[in-house]
Amino acid sequence: MANEWFTGWRHVFKLDPDKELTDEALDAICLSGTDAIMVGGSSGVTFENTVDLMSRIRRYEVPCALEVSSMDGAVPGFDGYFIPMVLNTDRAEWILGHQTMGLLEYGTFVPWDETAAEGYIILNGEATAAKLSGANAGLGTQEVIALTRMATRIMKLPVVYFEYSGRFGDMELVRQAAAQAGADSRVFYGGGIDSAERARQAAEAVDTVVVGNVIYTDLDKALSTVAAVKDASYVRRNG
Amino acid sequence: MANEWFTGWRHVFKLDPDKELTDEALDAICLSGTDAIMVGGSSGVTFENTVDLMSRIRRYEVPCALEVSSMDGAVPGFDGYFIPMVLNTDRAEWILGHQTMGLLEYGTFVPWDETAAEGYIILNGEATAAKLSGANAGLGTQEVIALTRMATRIMKLPVVYFEYSGRFGDMELVRQAAAQAGADSRVFYGGGIDSAERARQAAEAVDTVVVGNVIYTDLDKALSTVAAVKDASYVRRNG
Repeated sequence: MANEWFTGWRHVFKLDPDKELTDEALDAICLSGTDAIMVGGSSGVTFENTVDLMSRIRRYEVPCALEVSSMDGAVPGFDGYFIPMVLNTDRAEWILGHQTMGLLEYGTFVPWDETAAEGYIILNGEATAAKLSGANAGLGTQEVIALTRMATRIMKLPVVYFEYSGRFGDMELVRQAAAQAGADSRVFYGGGIDSAERARQAAEAVDTVVVGNVIYTDLDKALSTVAAVKDASYVRRNG
Repeated sequence: MANEWFTGWRHVFKLDPDKELTDEALDAICLSGTDAIMVGGSSGVTFENTVDLMSRIRRYEVPCALEVSSMDGAVPGFDGYFIPMVLNTDRAEWILGHQTMGLLEYGTFVPWDETAAEGYIILNGEATAAKLSGANAGLGTQEVIALTRMATRIMKLPVVYFEYSGRFGDMELVRQAAAQAGADSRVFYGGGIDSAERARQAAEAVDTVVVGNVIYTDLDKALSTVAAVKDASYVRRNG
């Protein structure tokens, strides 16, 4: 695949600027052996809480990327930037409208080589992001495959992201859809990974496993997902 | 840039399956020295008239690509396939909805390596494609630059296409926006090229110049655009 700054990431911890995390917990996360930290959230993200979290993570060597979901939280100084697009919505402003408005204002400051679109397919209708964006979360396997092919093989988006935020997804659907993604795109999965076993299942289906909420509810379980992902057997599709 | 099957095309003739073209005219077009023939149209395209045109072009060595604007006209046997997406519309079905429905039905038959998205920015509100898709054609230079950056540098679409179908565009706007496209994407221009002089102007602004309607109204003028494009001085942006 294209050699992007996020190529090779198998395990990622996603930290929410709007949630509390002690220094001890952050230390454990950053030294866990995860491939990267992603900073992002669906609500309550501000410039101040994003800067604050970034500067705390910056004391460690782990790569740190920002998911830019509003211009309020667009903070310089990260190693990379993801621009989420929602693919399964009828609201064009969530596909590329808001993002283009952001570029209209801040386009001259964007570090292009470290910035990439994430094509989100949101599959849990109860998720905040689904409600905000009007996502059609009730897609079947064939519809998700078609959208995955459109995103990765036709549009050539750098990342397609299966998002079940808040609950663990249908791994058979995810596995089948991920297998149809183009080789030049990276497939992310996020949602409901609250144990080593679930992390392993996701890691056998997709390129990159994103672990979020469990960090805030059960740190030990969160930390156990790192080794589970690294040890999982996974044969990457070849296009 | 990425080495795609359309990389390096500087001049393209676009033929409409719904329009008449004599064998003599087709012969002149195919032997003109153009880099490729693109087959496509906004209305009246059927399986039958597309197959018919393809088989006539196939007698020549010139590469021949199909722009798939409806599933009715999706015909196998071309060297390559473009999937148009409209970027400046609020109607999500024209961005990626119709295309994904097409893949839902025909996804197993698509030659992925020879298929690529074209991100259309439609800038003539009177064009049939603009009316069909509800395009916001009245964009200013900065808005077109933002959309071009979104399409090529964030989404990484293989092609962005400035479309003025039916009239010659604002070359200063086109030049400025094309200069901000990412190096890995190809920039196409189409619309109102009815003379060597206009072909030269477009060729100085973008990677690939598409000549269409004038084929049907003044063949000699159409043919004169090939040399004009090849001789135009153009320094490609480097990202």
